[in-house]
Amino acid sequence: MPGFSWPIRVYFEDTDMAGVVYYANYLKFMERARTEWLRSLGFEQDHLKAHERRIFAVRSVEIEYLSPAVFNDALIVESRVLRAGKASISFAQEIVRKRKEGGGDVLCRGRIKIACLETDSFKPAIMPKDLLEAVKSVC
Amino acid sequence: MPGFSWPIRVYFEDTDMAGVVYYANYLKFMERARTEWLRSLGFEQDHLKAHERRIFAVRSVEIEYLSPAVFNDALIVESRVLRAGKASISFAQEIVRKRKEGGGDVLCRGRIKIACLETDSFKPAIMPKDLLEAVKSVC
Amino acid sequence: MPGFSWPIRVYFEDTDMAGVVYYANYLKFMERARTEWLRSLGFEQDHLKAHERRIFAVRSVEIEYLSPAVFNDALIVESRVLRAGKASISFAQEIVRKRKEGGGDVLCRGRIKIACLETDSFKPAIMPKDLLEAVKSVC
Amino acid sequence: MPGFSWPIRVYFEDTDMAGVVYYANYLKFMERARTEWLRSLGFEQDHLKAHERRIFAVRSVEIEYLSPAVFNDALIVESRVLRAGKASISFAQEIVRKRKEGGGDVLCRGRIKIACLETDSFKPAIMPKDLLEAVKSVC
Repeated sequence: MPGFSWPIRVYFEDTDMAGVVYYANYLKFMERARTEWLRSLGFEQDHLKAHERRIFAVRSVEIEYLSPAVFNDALIVESRVLRAGKASISFAQEIVRKRKEGGGDVLCRGRIKIACLETDSFKPAIMPKDLLEAVKSVC
Repeated sequence: MPGFSWPIRVYFEDTDMAGVVYYANYLKFMERARTEWLRSLGFEQDHLKAHERRIFAVRSVEIEYLSPAVFNDALIVESRVLRAGKASISFAQEIVRKRKEGGGDVLCRGRIKIACLETDSFKPAIMPKDLLEAVKSVC
Repeated sequence: MPGFSWPIRVYFEDTDMAGVVYYANYLKFMERARTEWLRSLGFEQDHLKAHERRIFAVRSVEIEYLSPAVFNDALIVESRVLRAGKASISFAQEIVRKRKEGGGDVLCRGRIKIACLETDSFKPAIMPKDLLEAVKSVC
Repeated sequence: MPGFSWPIRVYFEDTDMAGVVYYANYLKFMERARTEWLRSLGFEQDHLKAHERRIFAVRSVEIEYLSPAVFNDALIVESRVLRAGKASISFAQEIVRKRKEGGGDVLCRGRIKIACLETDSFKPAIMPKDLLEAVKSVC
């Protein structure tokens, strides 16, 4: 899956008593990657919130867990924009464990739909024009 | 949605800087409810792990976020079994905010597929017979 | 330790790969208990924030971990006010695992100092008078 | 504070409705830094657990919160060994926000005591000799 790659190390805090990463925590990893993807395009969410009155909220998640991550794993979150509307972005994201010999195993795979909202009302709101152009440029 | 109801109070730890519950945390609420549902049928996961060599793992989640929960909300997680196989259970779960005047608003809605695994190998494994019967009895 | 008791059930989300509750999560349990203690006195933090412009922030924590909690444990958080100033409260809190035969084991023990702050400036601020009186009444 | 430095970026998951990092999450940041410090000495906790039957557990934490971290902050966790016994290590750790113009502000400061335990019994156990020597070399 071509797109934006972000590395994640698995720490104690991420694991549960089954010895693997707790299922909700993969959603944290995916959000870190989306934040870094946005930063890579030149946009910071704290600036968008303060100066453009825009925040992002997750509308829906579909995630399949194929194989568990464990403590100390060096993971890569692969993120790709599937569709960009004026007030929403859909991502395909995969979490991959690198193999020492090259390549990697997909541990989970998700589709995440994000909405752009006005900061106070939480109502859907059009993205700033420069952000929308930047997002469309990587679709 | 008839089924099993479990109350959840929203605390500081559940919220994020947008002033609402962080999207991954609804998955924690849903898991608490599934744990309590299993307990209500007479089964404890620590006992299943130690004595039956069985654990449960989430295979997939589809979740739609309709409206955010906030600090202090008194939520209800409604859980219903959609299908029970020999080594898997599919749930429909909703998180509802009660209204003082009665009724409630659905804040998010999910379908969660759980697999029964052998404790050490993490391979799919048939559920103990009494558990399977109990689950089928509430489908 | 006499004072305010609040029950906590340990779920999968609370545990780590060592099979016990992750050390930072006991601080979540203690905060839930302080929130419920405040509610038991008749004060809600969302109301204090919106109508009195006051929030609470933790200034310091001293915590000793004596014995680990595990999945499914039915814990009690015991909380007692040690000192109440005009803009701060110090708590002694213990997390106890109940024994079936009565009594319990203290799993961890903490001293937590809380400051009352003005909502926007985050500067120390005197507690509302009725809150201060209520807190002093239970010292 | 000379010693081992580890960078941490603050994400949405770390914040709470007060708009700052939730107080328990600084303990996660400190643990990540201790894990990386151990790795920098050449030791991996998954290897220690599997091959030496040793895990680490936190015995006590003293932490002072001086100033809050916020979303997007680029933090540094500074870690220094205060004392190393045969079965315990005491750390001083600080979380610092870098200033663009150089230097930084200490946001919180802690003392954390770690015990080395035998994996299954959870009883105190002497550290492997090479680990103990490595730790003493950086005291």
